[in-house]
Amino acid sequence: MGLTKAECSLLGESFGALPRGARNLITDVPGVRVTNVTLDQDDLCTGLTLILPGEDNLFVHKRIAASFVHNGFGKTLGLVQVDELGSLETPIALTNTLNVGLVHDALVSYTLERCQREGVSCRSLNPVVGECNDSRLSAIEKRPVQASHVWAALHQALEDGLSFDEGDAGAGKGTICYGFKGGIGSSSRLLEIEGVTYTLGVLVQSNFGAMQDFVLGGRCLGQEMLSRLASEEGKAQLDQGSIMLILATDLPLTSRQLRRLIRRMGAGLARSGSYIGHGSGEIMIGFTNANVLDPEAPLQRAAFLREDLLNLPFRAAADCAHEAVISSMFHAKSCLDPSGSLIPSLHDLFE
Amino acid sequence: MGLTKAECSLLGESFGALPRGARNLITDVPGVRVTNVTLDQDDLCTGLTLILPGEDNLFVHKRIAASFVHNGFGKTLGLVQVDELGSLETPIALTNTLNVGLVHDALVSYTLERCQREGVSCRSLNPVVGECNDSRLSAIEKRPVQASHVWAALHQALEDGLSFDEGDAGAGKGTICYGFKGGIGSSSRLLEIEGVTYTLGVLVQSNFGAMQDFVLGGRCLGQEMLSRLASEEGKAQLDQGSIMLILATDLPLTSRQLRRLIRRMGAGLARSGSYIGHGSGEIMIGFTNANVLDPEAPLQRAAFLREDLLNLPFRAAADCAHEAVISSMFHAKSCLDPSGSLIPSLHDLFE
Amino acid sequence: MGLTKAECSLLGESFGALPRGARNLITDVPGVRVTNVTLDQDDLCTGLTLILPGEDNLFVHKRIAASFVHNGFGKTLGLVQVDELGSLETPIALTNTLNVGLVHDALVSYTLERCQREGVSCRSLNPVVGECNDSRLSAIEKRPVQASHVWAALHQALEDGLSFDEGDAGAGKGTICYGFKGGIGSSSRLLEIEGVTYTLGVLVQSNFGAMQDFVLGGRCLGQEMLSRLASEEGKAQLDQGSIMLILATDLPLTSRQLRRLIRRMGAGLARSGSYIGHGSGEIMIGFTNANVLDPEAPLQRAAFLREDLLNLPFRAAADCAHEAVISSMFHAKSCLDPSGSLIPSLHDLFE
Amino acid sequence: MGLTKAECSLLGESFGALPRGARNLITDVPGVRVTNVTLDQDDLCTGLTLILPGEDNLFVHKRIAASFVHNGFGKTLGLVQVDELGSLETPIALTNTLNVGLVHDALVSYTLERCQREGVSCRSLNPVVGECNDSRLSAIEKRPVQASHVWAALHQALEDGLSFDEGDAGAGKGTICYGFKGGIGSSSRLLEIEGVTYTLGVLVQSNFGAMQDFVLGGRCLGQEMLSRLASEEGKAQLDQGSIMLILATDLPLTSRQLRRLIRRMGAGLARSGSYIGHGSGEIMIGFTNANVLDPEAPLQRAAFLREDLLNLPFRAAADCAHEAVISSMFHAKSCLDPSGSLIPSLHDLFE
Repeated sequence: MGLTKAECSLLGESFGALPRGARNLITDVPGVRVTNVTLDQDDLCTGLTLILPGEDNLFVHKRIAASFVHNGFGKTLGLVQVDELGSLETPIALTNTLNVGLVHDALVSYTLERCQREGVSCRSLNPVVGECNDSRLSAIEKRPVQASHVWAALHQALEDGLSFDEGDAGAGKGTICYGFKGGIGSSSRLLEIEGVTYTLGVLVQSNFGAMQDFVLGGRCLGQEMLSRLASEEGKAQLDQGSIMLILATDLPLTSRQLRRLIRRMGAGLARSGSYIGHGSGEIMIGFTNANVLDPEAPLQRAAFLREDLLNLPFRAAADCAHEAVISSMFHAKSCLDPSGSLIPSLHDLFE
Repeated sequence: MGLTKAECSLLGESFGALPRGARNLITDVPGVRVTNVTLDQDDLCTGLTLILPGEDNLFVHKRIAASFVHNGFGKTLGLVQVDELGSLETPIALTNTLNVGLVHDALVSYTLERCQREGVSCRSLNPVVGECNDSRLSAIEKRPVQASHVWAALHQALEDGLSFDEGDAGAGKGTICYGFKGGIGSSSRLLEIEGVTYTLGVLVQSNFGAMQDFVLGGRCLGQEMLSRLASEEGKAQLDQGSIMLILATDLPLTSRQLRRLIRRMGAGLARSGSYIGHGSGEIMIGFTNANVLDPEAPLQRAAFLREDLLNLPFRAAADCAHEAVISSMFHAKSCLDPSGSLIPSLHDLFE
Repeated sequence: MGLTKAECSLLGESFGALPRGARNLITDVPGVRVTNVTLDQDDLCTGLTLILPGEDNLFVHKRIAASFVHNGFGKTLGLVQVDELGSLETPIALTNTLNVGLVHDALVSYTLERCQREGVSCRSLNPVVGECNDSRLSAIEKRPVQASHVWAALHQALEDGLSFDEGDAGAGKGTICYGFKGGIGSSSRLLEIEGVTYTLGVLVQSNFGAMQDFVLGGRCLGQEMLSRLASEEGKAQLDQGSIMLILATDLPLTSRQLRRLIRRMGAGLARSGSYIGHGSGEIMIGFTNANVLDPEAPLQRAAFLREDLLNLPFRAAADCAHEAVISSMFHAKSCLDPSGSLIPSLHDLFE
Repeated sequence: MGLTKAECSLLGESFGALPRGARNLITDVPGVRVTNVTLDQDDLCTGLTLILPGEDNLFVHKRIAASFVHNGFGKTLGLVQVDELGSLETPIALTNTLNVGLVHDALVSYTLERCQREGVSCRSLNPVVGECNDSRLSAIEKRPVQASHVWAALHQALEDGLSFDEGDAGAGKGTICYGFKGGIGSSSRLLEIEGVTYTLGVLVQSNFGAMQDFVLGGRCLGQEMLSRLASEEGKAQLDQGSIMLILATDLPLTSRQLRRLIRRMGAGLARSGSYIGHGSGEIMIGFTNANVLDPEAPLQRAAFLREDLLNLPFRAAADCAHEAVISSMFHAKSCLDPSGSLIPSLHDLFE
């Protein structure tokens, strides 16, 4: 569950006036499923988060999609083809920076196996894999996320996948956001446009920002926390890391419109205080479950929103991204890094 | 009329195997009209070429459009909005480099007047104006293309506009291509896709390339001409100038697909020997008359081609661009520049 | 003068911790000059703002430059070449939307005249002209900004140009920002990097945002103002308009680095509440007075910052953009639109 | 060795007038090394080609770099960061489409090991891995290129790497180009600019084009070969596949200039008949060994070419790319695909 009204009230932030979906999660978008696989043992503090647009074979039923690179100091794989063809043909996987190659290969093996099972010819594939760098908390050089984790997450998602943990789970297990414990966060909005209700949801893997910049509900909470921390921990931190932002919707949009939409998530990030640091790979990826591409029809029949009706979705994208970041922090538990320094939880400030 | 079969045979170049439209001009695309206004007096050797997608008010009935900047050493106006919204809301005007501001203003005044006459509110407008630099042949600093020329061209286009002169006419009056006289050139192709026949047409304003690089029909005609010319004129020339390439079609395409399509015109340029010189502003703009945007409907109903069916249009775009360049040169007459140097016509090589 | 410390204190917003330049204006960057020409008579409420990188002939001494289109629903002219060559060869002019063609032409005539006077050959030129739509307050269809205004502004800038009016002056005379009176705003920061002090300044022409979204100093001032206004005026407004953001600096940067830098200004916009509405053309342009391009030397000797040192400039760009927007609003006086509706000044909220 | 003068003469194509480097290979660029690992057993016909900018640790001594996606139907990994930071921090690996994940991971493990050995902290890394689809000749689903192959290639390159096989070797073992056997091809040019001699080299992995489109030396060799082939094999083929083009140089260029340079390689492709098919992922990557980034100096001192001096490098890039494609085909041997159909060698046409 995303942030509740009571929690928003506690945090002093409304995140806009638009109504939320039932779960206030990206899985409110019909068809979308999410699962986490968390690795937390010895010196490993990392994981995998999978976002599935739907149960069907995406290689056959490609989704209209788009990416936007807000800051490209990052290692996300698969965007070249998403940009050219405006479509997505695998689930989206999030993991740690050095593990993207192995997770990419696992998505290949899974899709090949599924296609073979379903009698579909597949000799080329474009997996999309995003990442954040969790090396402060995890032995990133070990690349522990293996094919078995990817397959397990995919099977689990097809069985359930409507609810999932936020905070320090999955690919958010080892991330740090504004100096607080970061993680996976999500939020959704319901949009009524010309009598039809659509859903838009966002999921983030938050690993960016420096504590001194963090603001919430009109307060400089980062400064407040800095003054609470011990001298060493309380020093201003470098703005490093990254954030992955995944947007799902059932709005009927072209790839160009989706690209306009997802870049509005940057406004949500800025509201929490970020100026997009040099080291912060900020990558947006979006897809819609409306107008699924037909592998057969020469003429693809589609509907898409009149351009000026995008204002409401734009607002929702910014609001959701903001809330998802805060939700990722609020749901994460504090921890110690290997040197014994505290990574506080945002939650602790409100107890 | 574009190049005839007899002329192609003479030139030793087939420009591909696809069938041509009735006129072998961009105006074979239903709705499209073109007019030239030529200025040729005293030290002026320049003009204006207008491409109208249709008779209707484009500000109301915007066309799906795209641009691609192959080399951006150029002054084309209006591409920022075309790229963002994927649409075109005025005719496209071509003129000389320093005249783009005045032509832009004239498209504003014309559209305001028409909108007022038709009871349409218009307080913002994005004219698209392209250019080549004809300063070797014309007193470019005088900016002689005035609002009256733009209005005349627009009125004339609404009356006729299906046939137009190629070669040294309109915005091609003063241009030079591969050291030969350049100008306006055009070509079209008919595409049969899944039982439906579509039309694709290209119009160029050619002003690029160095003579020594020009090839045609497997021959280095540029080298041949260089050896014919007097010593001064026969020196290898700098690759300066520009080329504007306008593509029109009735293929049902999204803006993203159109953008993929128009960049294939670059292959056509390369076939004539260009390596895209530093100084050659190479700008592609395309629009489709299919799926005209509806100013009222919240949901725009559209059809667009399945992505892999784009191969045939891609081929047509390259073939048409190549032929349009050669047609612009073949139809232009030789002339002397102000210093008395000969600008030969490609036509002269075939007499 | 930009916002003073006392004014920031009154507004409840520090705009970051970095020190400001002497004037807290973009003209703190050595060489940079700015002038306004304001048209305010009858139904005209518009103008022109010119930003000159320096006194020298820019066509000869081109500046390293970059542009970034945050939202391209706008009519800025000249960006194609800035993007390709990474350089700027004219002053930057800001005006109203429908006047960009005439102002473009005026920059051509001015530069031609100057080049002729200085014995410089100039047969091609790429003026950069930005715009906002001030049609709610001004008869935009009249395109009243003429060559004479451009020339006057340029002459005036060469004489003085270090101080200039903010608020409803120049190209900001008729603009509206978050439902308040907008205009021209500016701010600067001093950056100490490895023992050297650099300056970075921003100038905005603010014409974006809907009142209900406006936040400042942690307060929803837009909501507060809405509740104060009469019923009609108090209705939530559409997010239309645009914002032009010009960044000047003497930091040694490549064009790629400048492009990274200027896009951080978007974070400043978001801090005041914007989600980048569909209709808001948000255009960033930046240049540096370091490493002026040498028209003669085959090898351009340059120094540029190590990439990770960009964090401080990034922060400054976001802070300056935020402050410049607020300064544009704070310095503007309230007015009535032609229908008699009040456009309040932000200043009024603090009296 | 690239094509010799005698071979060019035989082929009837000069590939421009610029002088070639000593080996006519990309390894003529000082520092650059290339190695192939070829897998050719049972149903495997694939491999790996590695391009090393130099012997030094690239993670420490990053090269100025750029990418350009001519057609993005491809799976190249690592371009997001190359585009943002304008730099390269690993060797470039080329392999088959489905093997990119494993090769990415192998570059991670190799670099981590080297950095550890050299006492360099490395917790983030951006490998660049390109690919073509060789599934017609190889069991691509097996992803046989393993870490051991990558390590072997890297060790071998550091020992020798100045000469390497072209044609059906390394990542070109299983590729098909214009219906002929494709593969690895390379070429180089010497550029004298203002008294200094620079080197520019290109390496391609060729896997694109349809036979009927292939032209060389002014002849439609594709049509000629089609008429020679048995009926089934002689049918017009779909334009599928991809081409990777790697450009290396010691020209002093910024990342922006490099990006302009590498896109000129597209002209070289078009000269051999391609119109850039939908299915042809055409990816250009370039780097320079001049101005290696200094990990310490706050101010990077650099020299770069005056922009108009780029014409010669542009010409060389187009010529080299053209020649490299032909060289890849000329050096490849004919073979049978698993169904027994002949994949002819271009070489066979000239015996």
